[in-house]
Amino acid sequence: MLCLQADTNAGWIEAASRNIIALLCDHAHCERKAAMNGMYLIMHYPQHDTLVREMITLVEEETAHFKMVVGELYGRGISLRPDRGNVYAKRLAEQVRKQDPERLMDSLLVDCLIEARSCERFTILAGCEDIPEDIRGMYHSLMSSEEGHYLTFVDLAKLYFPHATVEARLGELATVEASIVRSLTNMPQMHG
Amino acid sequence: MLCLQADTNAGWIEAASRNIIALLCDHAHCERKAAMNGMYLIMHYPQHDTLVREMITLVEEETAHFKMVVGELYGRGISLRPDRGNVYAKRLAEQVRKQDPERLMDSLLVDCLIEARSCERFTILAGCEDIPEDIRGMYHSLMSSEEGHYLTFVDLAKLYFPHATVEARLGELATVEASIVRSLTNMPQMHG
Repeated sequence: MLCLQADTNAGWIEAASRNIIALLCDHAHCERKAAMNGMYLIMHYPQHDTLVREMITLVEEETAHFKMVVGELYGRGISLRPDRGNVYAKRLAEQVRKQDPERLMDSLLVDCLIEARSCERFTILAGCEDIPEDIRGMYHSLMSSEEGHYLTFVDLAKLYFPHATVEARLGELATVEASIVRSLTNMPQMHG
Repeated sequence: MLCLQADTNAGWIEAASRNIIALLCDHAHCERKAAMNGMYLIMHYPQHDTLVREMITLVEEETAHFKMVVGELYGRGISLRPDRGNVYAKRLAEQVRKQDPERLMDSLLVDCLIEARSCERFTILAGCEDIPEDIRGMYHSLMSSEEGHYLTFVDLAKLYFPHATVEARLGELATVEASIVRSLTNMPQMHG
């Protein structure tokens, strides 16, 4: 799927579907962090008009998703729990080089991979019969949005850097991402 | 106005109205940071349902304001410039105590004061004849929103803490805020 080089571990969906509240809490925080990440990109690269415009749209959408997921929790009488962190995203972020222009390209491509992985996992969740129908519907509705965000980040990278450079670096980062995903311990988290 | 104990220095409006592009760039970053601050409050206090709900609404509104101000820049063919920082907000943030529950109360009341000051300054900008009509109109439209956010933060503080404690601390912080405002050097920034 998309640019991914490994499928999610087979054991993850069982852990996720058996702990749907933990999954929803983690998912809510992922949406919040995705919105904040869009704002960080604007903070670091205000001079890039297209990036700013695209990130405003992304922040609007991620905030709406956060609101939707929190609404699923509140509809069940459950408060949002503290963020338990995201080892997957943390290890991917370590791949981002520290100096621009490489920092910008790597940031966009890491974000692209996270969106692609989210899209893959939403697809798995939407098709899992052990998950309540309304939550499956929510994940189904989110799939195309994540695919759109994946394309947004790739297109931005190709706007600011040569296509061949982007493709080569995306391949390298996708290999690292696949290695990280294989090492995950199947926690009830969106990227667990 | 509202809870403020000092008026903005008389010299500020001249600096602001003579450097409207610098003001708009700084204003845009203020809206971005206000949205990010709402997300930070959710990150730190996920267990407080009302705070989470109110901050989602605030993030939506601040993001819309950011989009509007950036649109004013783009309409003039100007890109967003880097954030030059905000001494006013930084000095106010130093007043926030480090441990909860005091941290939560102080954070809400500092945010309340920033919104109140923004409301006061938007009112001054909306009434300044040296500023282009469309920008004055934008500031007029933002005044009531900032007043609404001021009330949101005060009401949240009173939801989680005794009213008398909130009123006393708000008075203390407003005194500090007034002292900071009097010391400002009239830069073309929203809180300059």
